[in-house]
Amino acid sequence: MATFPPSVQSRVVTDEDVKRTYAADAGPEPRDPARDVASDYTVVRARDVADVVAVLEHAQATGTPVVPQGARTSRVGGARATDGCIVLNVEALDAIETIDPVEGIAVVGPGVVNAALKAAAAEAGLFYGPDPASTATCTIGGNVATNAGGLCCLKYGVTADWVKALDVVLPGGEVMRTGHRTIKGVTGLDLTGLFVGSEGTLGVTTRVVTRLVPAPDPALTALATFGSLDEAVRAVVALRLDRHRPSLLEMMDRASLDAVRGFGDYGFPEESEAVLLVQSDRPGHTAEDVARYGELMTAAGAVEVAVAEDRQEADLLLQGRRVLSTAVEALGARIAEDVCVPVGRLGEYVRGAAEAARRFDVRIPVSGHAGDGNLHPSIVYPYGDAGARERAWAAFDELMQLGLSLGGTVAGEHGIGSIKRRWFAAEVGPREVERQRAIKAVFDPSGIMNPEVVFGPAGRVAGAAGPAT
Amino acid sequence: MATFPPSVQSRVVTDEDVKRTYAADAGPEPRDPARDVASDYTVVRARDVADVVAVLEHAQATGTPVVPQGARTSRVGGARATDGCIVLNVEALDAIETIDPVEGIAVVGPGVVNAALKAAAAEAGLFYGPDPASTATCTIGGNVATNAGGLCCLKYGVTADWVKALDVVLPGGEVMRTGHRTIKGVTGLDLTGLFVGSEGTLGVTTRVVTRLVPAPDPALTALATFGSLDEAVRAVVALRLDRHRPSLLEMMDRASLDAVRGFGDYGFPEESEAVLLVQSDRPGHTAEDVARYGELMTAAGAVEVAVAEDRQEADLLLQGRRVLSTAVEALGARIAEDVCVPVGRLGEYVRGAAEAARRFDVRIPVSGHAGDGNLHPSIVYPYGDAGARERAWAAFDELMQLGLSLGGTVAGEHGIGSIKRRWFAAEVGPREVERQRAIKAVFDPSGIMNPEVVFGPAGRVAGAAGPAT
Repeated sequence: MATFPPSVQSRVVTDEDVKRTYAADAGPEPRDPARDVASDYTVVRARDVADVVAVLEHAQATGTPVVPQGARTSRVGGARATDGCIVLNVEALDAIETIDPVEGIAVVGPGVVNAALKAAAAEAGLFYGPDPASTATCTIGGNVATNAGGLCCLKYGVTADWVKALDVVLPGGEVMRTGHRTIKGVTGLDLTGLFVGSEGTLGVTTRVVTRLVPAPDPALTALATFGSLDEAVRAVVALRLDRHRPSLLEMMDRASLDAVRGFGDYGFPEESEAVLLVQSDRPGHTAEDVARYGELMTAAGAVEVAVAEDRQEADLLLQGRRVLSTAVEALGARIAEDVCVPVGRLGEYVRGAAEAARRFDVRIPVSGHAGDGNLHPSIVYPYGDAGARERAWAAFDELMQLGLSLGGTVAGEHGIGSIKRRWFAAEVGPREVERQRAIKAVFDPSGIMNPEVVFGPAGRVAGAAGPAT
Repeated sequence: MATFPPSVQSRVVTDEDVKRTYAADAGPEPRDPARDVASDYTVVRARDVADVVAVLEHAQATGTPVVPQGARTSRVGGARATDGCIVLNVEALDAIETIDPVEGIAVVGPGVVNAALKAAAAEAGLFYGPDPASTATCTIGGNVATNAGGLCCLKYGVTADWVKALDVVLPGGEVMRTGHRTIKGVTGLDLTGLFVGSEGTLGVTTRVVTRLVPAPDPALTALATFGSLDEAVRAVVALRLDRHRPSLLEMMDRASLDAVRGFGDYGFPEESEAVLLVQSDRPGHTAEDVARYGELMTAAGAVEVAVAEDRQEADLLLQGRRVLSTAVEALGARIAEDVCVPVGRLGEYVRGAAEAARRFDVRIPVSGHAGDGNLHPSIVYPYGDAGARERAWAAFDELMQLGLSLGGTVAGEHGIGSIKRRWFAAEVGPREVERQRAIKAVFDPSGIMNPEVVFGPAGRVAGAAGPAT
């Protein structure tokens, strides 16, 4: 147990039950629950930057690993306690300091919830683009750590496309400022970009400057059902080439639709191989756009197209997509997958996932951001069934390999975390892992920052070990 | 003089006159021409990646500095011969390998000219956004090296927003691949982003994967004249907040207008304090948009608004903006400035530049990408006048300081090169310079890559020394 300076001591969580809630994240249950549980960790809830500085001074001086943490929505075991670590939670750094319409920027703390930033921007007639499915709970700091994407990337890009500048506390307590508040800037190396997606392995973000743009219209939605995957993929390609690209283009397979219908009535169809949900938020043209999207999908072979006539209907359809994650979790234990493949090969990936489900006797509903080639198959199995868990992890490995063989990547928007280290190395190669470790060492020479994720050696991780390395 | 392996020997330029043309770039003449001329450099015109690998193997083995080079359009002395260096020109690596409408990507060599990529994309109904004023000559490799911007950044962002993946040859000859061809991807640190804007200090780019989007319409243009800078800036702020943001928003001051009129008749007005050029390329709505932009500018205080009725008139107005650089160069020797300031402080910057022109007795026409807060004052003085040159560099220093004091950056889109090293350090601080040197050392442990730019110590540089350090 670490001994902190008095200023930090009052931020340490002492209640064991509360502590345990900070040890876990939203990633899968461990491959080997008997082995993969951390012990002897400390939880600090920072209230300001000074707390973060004090913890990182202390950690550097004592060689203590630090796991930075926001809302713990990581799907890949990126924010879990490890043996002997300090879990450093920064949710309380949740100030929205600035919303500036003239310069088109927001300045926020890392603990600001994604939806809260969107709401604050909207009050000023502005818009913040990145839109993870967990928008209501996930924090901007976590979005920065994973370069989070979401449902609107097709038109608005990912977190990296919106972050302009950062304050980061480094091991030892130095506060580093990266980037520019001005619209452009090329002064030396782009360390802002290097930190976005670095999964807490380099330092702790304490302030984020993002750009904001004029707000679009409330979106309207079209929904289309398809009798085959190939037709759905043909529609995706056509929609991407429309000169007014959709603001959202989601795909759900039969198993996903079943899961949503089991959860509530969101107006989803009974039977089909695939459903596409498409939105336009283009000011003044949403109805015209979704009508045209409907025609494009019909031309690609859609069996049925429903165009939401109004905002309420559109919201209902999209709510169906947003509850999918919760609906799937109701089915059992879950490993949430996140491969991104070339758009033209989406069909092959979905078919491969179905084939893996049969072979390994697990359920794998497939859904995701088809417009980005980014799918989230969920490998689902009964809680507490060790054999099924082993088969699920085998299916996971197969889905990783399949993604790579199609020219894709093992992490579209969730990051590597602790569960995909081996697949990270498989994708980029051992030389690249070494190079990235050397870059990490520039910021974190003692290797204390989130040491179990991305570059870390295989080790004990509370809640998830990931595939054997 | 370096001795190369036989495979490279035939790529070495032997004609002294030809060699000299590769020693210079488009940056300013030297502060001290007697001192700042490189000697004993070698020029290699690579024809393929194998040549680049061979040169970087040789350079690493012999500790020879390497200056990577494309079309030599650098404004900041970023691509100039230095004492004893190998100038490695990669213009001949100009293959457009792939234009893929389904995935929305292009794969090109670093020597492909910006306009050539735009044209190839247009043939497929697609669009590549970054649009430097030198689009007709500058290369994608150079655009990557400087994170180039241009006239369309307001709507389309800078080069970093378009580059998805790179092949880079590192010192020693290793070929490194960064990034993803898929639309999303978060596997470890973003080395693509780290290389964009690194000004040839880390390695030599040999392949670039960019994204492409559906092509917009040919743009229409509105031009407005203003009696005061404050009204022009008010118009800029209003235009940025329009829900259909302009695709281009350029400002020119009185001296810039004089220069263009002296060069040819592009339909520019006779008298005004500032002119704004605004474009829309929104499919199906260009006429509607530029009419509305005109109304916004009138409301902000424009004296006169001219809306181009057709494509020809619109092109003519924009040509006036595009020839400005040539027109200014006809006035004398030139130091091209590139500060980016908060949009709300554009007026203060332009007034400060005018005041500096008076005080240092040089001409400083001011123009640039007002929609981005990115201005290019040109400090102009008579060729061969040593006293005027000294005053021009003093004005340059003052403009750098002014930009920083307004919360801006010393480099919006041209980079640091060799002429702004001191101001780079002034902006980011000595600790940050050391950190970035440490990151450079991960890729370039011997410090052979473009050693005089960005991080370099003061040293002899052909064509430009920059301010004393």
